[in-house]
Amino acid sequence: GSYGAPAPAAANDPMWGYFTAIAGQDGEVDAEELQRCLTQSGFTGSYSPFSLETCRVMIAMLDRDSTGKMGFNEFKDLFTALNGWKQNFVMFDRDRSGTVEPQEMGQAVYAMGFRIGPQALNVIIKRYSKGGRIYFDDYVACCVRLRALTETFKRRDTMQQGAVSFQYDDFILCTMAI
Amino acid sequence: GSYGAPAPAAANDPMWGYFTAIAGQDGEVDAEELQRCLTQSGFTGSYSPFSLETCRVMIAMLDRDSTGKMGFNEFKDLFTALNGWKQNFVMFDRDRSGTVEPQEMGQAVYAMGFRIGPQALNVIIKRYSKGGRIYFDDYVACCVRLRALTETFKRRDTMQQGAVSFQYDDFILCTMAI
Repeated sequence: GSYGAPAPAAANDPMWGYFTAIAGQDGEVDAEELQRCLTQSGFTGSYSPFSLETCRVMIAMLDRDSTGKMGFNEFKDLFTALNGWKQNFVMFDRDRSGTVEPQEMGQAVYAMGFRIGPQALNVIIKRYSKGGRIYFDDYVACCVRLRALTETFKRRDTMQQGAVSFQYDDFILCTMAI
Repeated sequence: GSYGAPAPAAANDPMWGYFTAIAGQDGEVDAEELQRCLTQSGFTGSYSPFSLETCRVMIAMLDRDSTGKMGFNEFKDLFTALNGWKQNFVMFDRDRSGTVEPQEMGQAVYAMGFRIGPQALNVIIKRYSKGGRIYFDDYVACCVRLRALTETFKRRDTMQQGAVSFQYDDFILCTMAI
């Protein structure tokens, strides 16, 4: 979903053209439209285009009103995040193989400021590896979910105690969304 | 991971042949091997083969020792679950389009005994739809995650109060795994 109309400056934004061409009437994109938008804009460069799964979690990360769609302001927020993740990935992908190694993924997670233990990190690496390496599409899906789940947790941890109590229904809503 | 060797009866199991041919030396399959196994056995029939993402969550659902792999006993458990979900899906896919409608997905979720509210159901349907319909691969990924997350919650809800307190690290481990 979207909050308010885009700022007038948006018209000068190179992404605005791609976005409006694909968003159509309602001014919002769903996961399939977002996938087309990111593919056509050439964002992934020499890496494989984003999978629908990764585009779905991108939408979910910023979909505050649970419409399953994304407005231009949310799209810009996404783009800022994507650029940061891409820079990190390129930095770690020294041999330009289009992949990073498990330990580099771990370094990236810690560099982004996520404070998780070795067991959680191990689980994440297993979940997002293919043939012992991590590809850009999976790397981004991982970053998106890690950020979204951390925000979900922090939003509920109002006393900042590092612990949150979830009702079953709320737990399923939060975790199945992303 | 696996617990113990398969029962002697396993050798007579038609799945055993597919499994052992692919599992190789270590007697376990990772997500890519599982995908090959399910594709070669023709399990999905006229539906599209399972995506790697769906195979990854299948592994995660039964991966009690976090190895990112699955032994034959776990594979049989998976197969039992898959057959149940397939029967449900086929029942709801009356026009044999290979898809079910959002409200049918909701009926299926309730029929499986998951007690979630309309908002959580809406989020799930949005997350797993493509062009307003739900395909078999996404349907299974949804069932796998719903079952795994419900089990995660119940395992921690020892007093059966319907509420669980998570530390941040544990929350990330549980939710990022699946």
